[in-house]
Amino acid sequence: MSVLVVGSVAYDGIEAPAGKVDRILGGSATYISLASGYFTQPVRLVGTVGYDFAESDKKLLKDKGVDMEGFKVDESGLTFFWKGRYHENLNNRDTLDTQLNVFEHFDPVIPEVYKGSRIVCLGNIAPELQLKVLDQVRGPKLTICDTMNFWISGSREALDEVIKRVDVLIINDQEAQELTGESNLNVCARKIRQMGPKYLIIKKGEHGAVLYSEQDMFSAPAFPLKTIVDPTGAGDSFLGGFAGWLSWSDRINEENLRRAVVYGSVMASYCVEDFGPNRLTQLRKFDIDTRYDVFKKMSQIPGRL
Amino acid sequence: MSVLVVGSVAYDGIEAPAGKVDRILGGSATYISLASGYFTQPVRLVGTVGYDFAESDKKLLKDKGVDMEGFKVDESGLTFFWKGRYHENLNNRDTLDTQLNVFEHFDPVIPEVYKGSRIVCLGNIAPELQLKVLDQVRGPKLTICDTMNFWISGSREALDEVIKRVDVLIINDQEAQELTGESNLNVCARKIRQMGPKYLIIKKGEHGAVLYSEQDMFSAPAFPLKTIVDPTGAGDSFLGGFAGWLSWSDRINEENLRRAVVYGSVMASYCVEDFGPNRLTQLRKFDIDTRYDVFKKMSQIPGRL
Repeated sequence: MSVLVVGSVAYDGIEAPAGKVDRILGGSATYISLASGYFTQPVRLVGTVGYDFAESDKKLLKDKGVDMEGFKVDESGLTFFWKGRYHENLNNRDTLDTQLNVFEHFDPVIPEVYKGSRIVCLGNIAPELQLKVLDQVRGPKLTICDTMNFWISGSREALDEVIKRVDVLIINDQEAQELTGESNLNVCARKIRQMGPKYLIIKKGEHGAVLYSEQDMFSAPAFPLKTIVDPTGAGDSFLGGFAGWLSWSDRINEENLRRAVVYGSVMASYCVEDFGPNRLTQLRKFDIDTRYDVFKKMSQIPGRL
Repeated sequence: MSVLVVGSVAYDGIEAPAGKVDRILGGSATYISLASGYFTQPVRLVGTVGYDFAESDKKLLKDKGVDMEGFKVDESGLTFFWKGRYHENLNNRDTLDTQLNVFEHFDPVIPEVYKGSRIVCLGNIAPELQLKVLDQVRGPKLTICDTMNFWISGSREALDEVIKRVDVLIINDQEAQELTGESNLNVCARKIRQMGPKYLIIKKGEHGAVLYSEQDMFSAPAFPLKTIVDPTGAGDSFLGGFAGWLSWSDRINEENLRRAVVYGSVMASYCVEDFGPNRLTQLRKFDIDTRYDVFKKMSQIPGRL
């Protein structure tokens, strides 16, 4: 199944306990596409960058299976730039700089050939733009949406409309709590699913991820990393792995959704092992399969005696 | 295999968002014994209470399979009393009152017939007392220990000696972090296992529990409760379910340790559904098995396609 990804393409400056980088490829659509491309190609990316976007980064995306028809270079300005600093525990971060640049005027126009995409990934952008995408695509098999606190507090009405219309919402635990005003994640899940989405995935960082659906609940652990270099893009890589693997599997059912959650977790676990997408761009199929099997083994509960 | 439990027997006053009780049976040895008794009987409890200990509570323990030879009534004073208030999120609590009473002079003298017990459970008491127990028992098959922040900061030397000598240490995430000065739980686990115990279980509350051993790592989810009435005794119930089931299984291997972690999680999940041990004392085998199967189903990862 074809995958459409809409989101940001950016440069990031990152400070973390493990070190810092001044400028590295980033953005939700970038991470989603890179992770997704391991399972399905081409990945249809709709995004915009400025005149400063490096040829080498464009080449990287192409080499990783990204179709560039929806990738627009806006010569009027610079690429979206974000700079942040992670705290010692890596669960919190401060934004040091945000320069929207050409992304301020990003209007996701979906190319005609992309409109029939079977899987639609709405990266973390303004819900008004996510709605625009939903209005343009034609009968996708699965729509998947990410969001963040900024939109939960700032664009609630449009976000509620997005949540009502998508099939899968993927958010983290804090976002689920903010969205519902509840602290118990199982209560959050029930409330959010009542808002519309058939499937809800709550990401819990080092505590794994939980998939909620009508009949099923699936709890996946996190990969037992001893070092996390840079959490940037972990959530997007999760979404990309999830969507990309489902696309490859070509069949959406409860078993495959579980597998997709694990592949998402695998991609996120690799993502954080180096700055930006450095590790994510260097994987082999063997690495992904091996880690999948570790997830499977570490959560295996034997039957009762 | 015979199970020996050493710890506190107490009365608790509990305030929680769901309500309050002024005085209810409590104490680490109580919860461990009650949970353990579902799988193996008799449970050999060594503990002390005061002259105010109710006959009905004594009868309850007996009815639930507790052997009373090591259960001492000290007529010189009152039973240990603790009163606490849980915060809205239930993860934190304030101690409002602690009256050690006869527990202040608790000296765990192990009856001769208990000394050959195969599984020894050291509930959360002073590590100096835990060492006394270890000095009295003869070649147990498995020693299991719980502790808390109070001893980590206040009796570190004795606690280190206990940790060096036991087979299984069961603590929560905050305690693991305090014990090692590390924030990453996988790093904590490596450091703690280097301190001695063959097996380490880190309890993460709503995020489940993780078992670490030389060759294995096993991540169990938490049961998806929508309401938690009273967290008191959850950790002790975990230990009791873990130890009791292992005793019943009669064989300690990696598969059974995983099952034991799940049975521990099951008992803890029931414990928190009502105040004190109210729910824990009302279970049927069917309830326990059913919840075990839910744990198994919700963490099942299908094989790769």
